[in-house]
Amino acid sequence: MSNRAAVMPELHRIEIREVPDPVPLPQQAVVRVEAVGVCGSDTAYYKVGRIGDYVVDGPIVLGHEVAGQVVEVGADVTNVEVGDRVAIEPGTPCRNCAQCFAGRYHLCPDLVFLATPPYDGALMEKMAIDARNLHRLPDAMTFEQGALAEPLSVGIWGCKRAGLEAGDEVLVTGAGPVGLLAAAAARAFGALSVTVTDVSAFRLDLARSMGFETEHSDEPGSKAFDVLLECSGAPGVLGRGLRRLRPAGRAAMIGMSKEEAIALPLSQLNVNELTISLVNRYQNTWPLAIALISSGRVDVEPLITHHFPLAQTEDALLLASTVPDSVKAVIHPQR
Amino acid sequence: MSNRAAVMPELHRIEIREVPDPVPLPQQAVVRVEAVGVCGSDTAYYKVGRIGDYVVDGPIVLGHEVAGQVVEVGADVTNVEVGDRVAIEPGTPCRNCAQCFAGRYHLCPDLVFLATPPYDGALMEKMAIDARNLHRLPDAMTFEQGALAEPLSVGIWGCKRAGLEAGDEVLVTGAGPVGLLAAAAARAFGALSVTVTDVSAFRLDLARSMGFETEHSDEPGSKAFDVLLECSGAPGVLGRGLRRLRPAGRAAMIGMSKEEAIALPLSQLNVNELTISLVNRYQNTWPLAIALISSGRVDVEPLITHHFPLAQTEDALLLASTVPDSVKAVIHPQR
Amino acid sequence: MSNRAAVMPELHRIEIREVPDPVPLPQQAVVRVEAVGVCGSDTAYYKVGRIGDYVVDGPIVLGHEVAGQVVEVGADVTNVEVGDRVAIEPGTPCRNCAQCFAGRYHLCPDLVFLATPPYDGALMEKMAIDARNLHRLPDAMTFEQGALAEPLSVGIWGCKRAGLEAGDEVLVTGAGPVGLLAAAAARAFGALSVTVTDVSAFRLDLARSMGFETEHSDEPGSKAFDVLLECSGAPGVLGRGLRRLRPAGRAAMIGMSKEEAIALPLSQLNVNELTISLVNRYQNTWPLAIALISSGRVDVEPLITHHFPLAQTEDALLLASTVPDSVKAVIHPQR
Amino acid sequence: MSNRAAVMPELHRIEIREVPDPVPLPQQAVVRVEAVGVCGSDTAYYKVGRIGDYVVDGPIVLGHEVAGQVVEVGADVTNVEVGDRVAIEPGTPCRNCAQCFAGRYHLCPDLVFLATPPYDGALMEKMAIDARNLHRLPDAMTFEQGALAEPLSVGIWGCKRAGLEAGDEVLVTGAGPVGLLAAAAARAFGALSVTVTDVSAFRLDLARSMGFETEHSDEPGSKAFDVLLECSGAPGVLGRGLRRLRPAGRAAMIGMSKEEAIALPLSQLNVNELTISLVNRYQNTWPLAIALISSGRVDVEPLITHHFPLAQTEDALLLASTVPDSVKAVIHPQR
Repeated sequence: MSNRAAVMPELHRIEIREVPDPVPLPQQAVVRVEAVGVCGSDTAYYKVGRIGDYVVDGPIVLGHEVAGQVVEVGADVTNVEVGDRVAIEPGTPCRNCAQCFAGRYHLCPDLVFLATPPYDGALMEKMAIDARNLHRLPDAMTFEQGALAEPLSVGIWGCKRAGLEAGDEVLVTGAGPVGLLAAAAARAFGALSVTVTDVSAFRLDLARSMGFETEHSDEPGSKAFDVLLECSGAPGVLGRGLRRLRPAGRAAMIGMSKEEAIALPLSQLNVNELTISLVNRYQNTWPLAIALISSGRVDVEPLITHHFPLAQTEDALLLASTVPDSVKAVIHPQR
Repeated sequence: MSNRAAVMPELHRIEIREVPDPVPLPQQAVVRVEAVGVCGSDTAYYKVGRIGDYVVDGPIVLGHEVAGQVVEVGADVTNVEVGDRVAIEPGTPCRNCAQCFAGRYHLCPDLVFLATPPYDGALMEKMAIDARNLHRLPDAMTFEQGALAEPLSVGIWGCKRAGLEAGDEVLVTGAGPVGLLAAAAARAFGALSVTVTDVSAFRLDLARSMGFETEHSDEPGSKAFDVLLECSGAPGVLGRGLRRLRPAGRAAMIGMSKEEAIALPLSQLNVNELTISLVNRYQNTWPLAIALISSGRVDVEPLITHHFPLAQTEDALLLASTVPDSVKAVIHPQR
Repeated sequence: MSNRAAVMPELHRIEIREVPDPVPLPQQAVVRVEAVGVCGSDTAYYKVGRIGDYVVDGPIVLGHEVAGQVVEVGADVTNVEVGDRVAIEPGTPCRNCAQCFAGRYHLCPDLVFLATPPYDGALMEKMAIDARNLHRLPDAMTFEQGALAEPLSVGIWGCKRAGLEAGDEVLVTGAGPVGLLAAAAARAFGALSVTVTDVSAFRLDLARSMGFETEHSDEPGSKAFDVLLECSGAPGVLGRGLRRLRPAGRAAMIGMSKEEAIALPLSQLNVNELTISLVNRYQNTWPLAIALISSGRVDVEPLITHHFPLAQTEDALLLASTVPDSVKAVIHPQR
Repeated sequence: MSNRAAVMPELHRIEIREVPDPVPLPQQAVVRVEAVGVCGSDTAYYKVGRIGDYVVDGPIVLGHEVAGQVVEVGADVTNVEVGDRVAIEPGTPCRNCAQCFAGRYHLCPDLVFLATPPYDGALMEKMAIDARNLHRLPDAMTFEQGALAEPLSVGIWGCKRAGLEAGDEVLVTGAGPVGLLAAAAARAFGALSVTVTDVSAFRLDLARSMGFETEHSDEPGSKAFDVLLECSGAPGVLGRGLRRLRPAGRAAMIGMSKEEAIALPLSQLNVNELTISLVNRYQNTWPLAIALISSGRVDVEPLITHHFPLAQTEDALLLASTVPDSVKAVIHPQR
């Protein structure tokens, strides 16, 4: 038995190392990892070693958009069996605190989250994880699709946080993977129109090919919207987006800004009585994400522009900066 | 018949002038004005002539916290009669637009609002207004109490916007009239605890006498809260208040800031998935405001520190700057 | 000038009579009526003269699913112009009461509703109505489609009352026009699956052709649902549907039952903590209904099985009982 | 060491038996039981051996309104310590299912609930239970008060299910312990008025002494309400209560009816677009219940009319039928 992992021993370096075979605790399952999507946060940890208060402080394995196949289950596991093809929800809550009891397990202060320091992620051949984090995939759904249930979950939860209702006209700022999947989620929630903005002509083309209206981020724009899904994290975009909202408009701030503080023209926005919802990942979204993908309502394939074997993890992490016309890299640990 | 009004012909000047006797339109009533509370916005128009985009551009009559007695009704009025003692809701919506149909008449783009340029307010002996803006007062309720249904409405609607639920622990930043009445509303909504902050020892004493916990604004504070009602409008207070909220905390921004833009540490706050609700006045609050005051659940009397006849309107407008240990001035146009 | 109307002078009789040309009040418009859908309530008034507490007591004109063209506007009308093609919202609220102010104008106690005794409906060549009840149609939308914005509104509002969310699995009991359009609305709201039940093989075939799953009403059924939209009004169907719901399931009772009282097994249902929402027509649904039809998300054409000129109103009213394999009749008053 | 329990070996019989000393599992604590309130369900199991689908099928220990002191904790327990005075939440969910993840742990299909067949309750000197079900009591709160956090939780959750908002006028049908505590919860939630109905003059007097308005159940009543909390379970009361609601009124069905089916005049109620929420116990209510009692906002003392030692458990269970002017019996297992 062997278990190779893509370990990041220090910034700017990934080594393929042999790691111990996972032994499941009673409530855990072992998953043979088949597909891991690369997220901007993986690249940020690789390049600068931190996101906000989360600081890499020792070797770490990246990767938290994951699908694979169950190869072993612990003694207490009842919800999956060996052979099940599954998508992995990366956060494991304590299930004991007030947040967990209230159904907000994603806000659990003791949440263990894949590839968020100090916890390892999924860029390895086999990993053990709480079986309750596993969601079975329909036969017709690929592992790549399964891995993208994670970024789609970000979009779904952003729509829920924004209180998106059927009939809303929606502005999505940022056409990266999360923005495009938030746009797809908004359409699946019954949005009447979905307009995506970005500075990249390539990404705007992609957005149009997926059926969304588009605007270049620099256009002043004239149409007004009911809902803003901010997915760019870029300076000033949230403030400008809020000005596009109608009275009683709602915004979800999904994109992670690198700015210490974000300046918002609240004194001018209060006349419209906007509601601004901050977003921390997701909760209870996997069943819907899987159903949307497997039923064809959300097509994640156009986003998967590049594939890599485990040994080329570094290339995958650097894809965004080396190949501008790329969107989402998927790493295949078994290759 | 005579009708004196406190007219502001230009900044820093109030003149008592004779104005025409009001003639009601079919849907209007004429009210003999008995009590008008002075609001910070009245003082701002008097001193600097503008609040945000609203600019005084010609003579104006101030005053929008109003109670009085109906002395005449138009042909189509059915909801009040001559002799009724009433509180006046100062905003008259169009009742025809999408916002009005949706029950958000306070966001009507054509809202006519007392003492908001270019519309006159209530500092006169008699005024005509749409009878649907009138809310009858119980016999035992004074006109002063009736006038304060307006600032209490601000607090009530702020609580609603914040999604305040029974059991919440609430932080109110700012112990001016609106802050104290927002605190009183929060308690009436079932808040488990209400903590008020301010920089004024006088106002903190007043808050304590009304039964609230207090903190000086400069204290770091340790207790965490479920809900923030920002009522100070002071720089930095919203951001600091948001940091005091628990996961899934909710904030309503009630205080009007003078800053162009407000810098918020959203990237650090998103881990708690806060919701920030902007607030534009109120809607459908008068019946509850009147009931809370008349039933004794909210005691507005401690706030009414000073009384003035119409001729001393200027003294009333300057009260806050001349008498630091003051809270709310009430002007009596019949005196 | 002439204005023919289909008047029902007494039960079981319709006469084409010349009626006065409508003269609009200042807030009204005159509409040349182009399409009127026949509703089960029209047929009920024709056959038995009453629905619940609404009793026909004198000659009445039926028809409340209406579209046409504006031919004249009153002095105060600003939202439509002569020549506009419009769908008509049949209820005119008082706009003055607590329900209207709260955005629940459909619950206004003084609501004037087309073809609900004692008010006349739209089966005439020209009619005057409050211009605020008119909703402009896109150029590409037919009058027949515009008329069906009314029953689609019933479905939309039923979905809203049920709190239908994206991802819900939905059971619709009853495949008449309202059931099929409620199913279509549910899909547009993001329902993961929509299952329609009926006793008619013809209607179940139609439901399948519209893309819905079907069950015969007599089948016990095995699948569980999150939401029930009861659209049959038939005895026992609501109770059986409620038993199919998952924990925390939600039901909207859209179908009008003829039973005095409906027996529900609440003591067994409470373990699932269901929520049952009664439904009275709709509010604020026309813009969404028109957008759903004109964008092609909801296809109303398969429902329109029969067309009649005004002179054959009686045939149209009897269609359901004379042609079992029919769904919706549209009457064209200009023919 | 000894551990006496009040065991019901068969209907109509309670025996005090020695039972094994509890040994806590790693996640459990052992509680010395100090106060157990008697609930109508305890009496029902004693008299008829069933409630709905829950059937007594072998010896059982009753009692699920419980407070006591922690005397031992399992290895994994972190939230309580030996010596803590606690109220016990009687339901232990699986924490693994969709309902648990969604924050609806009370609807968990595998919920283990004290004194609900086949699970034993708390009428014993010492019991082991999952430590996460324990809620610490403030020093000044008695064990009797702590035990009544359970029926108060029923009232709190009923208010939440009914969507009770500050300003609502509330009708509570049934003045038993649950009705009176639901009324108290409604007041704490900001209800403007709370009217309680019953057939017992004694209970109506008690309701009045607690500050509620009252009506005899047979009075037709004239006042209309926004919210109905049905707590009687008596035939016809739900239907009559629903007729008292205003448009958009909301009802929670808290009382357990013994009727197979409940006949409701839904066809007449739909004009008011009521919402009827079924209720299954509660979730996340203990912190608020304890805070309401300990802060004095809810006074449970007037309800505790009788006290019994463990040996007189049978008398306590029969109290309601033997002493009409009784409300709540508390059993003290240490006496």
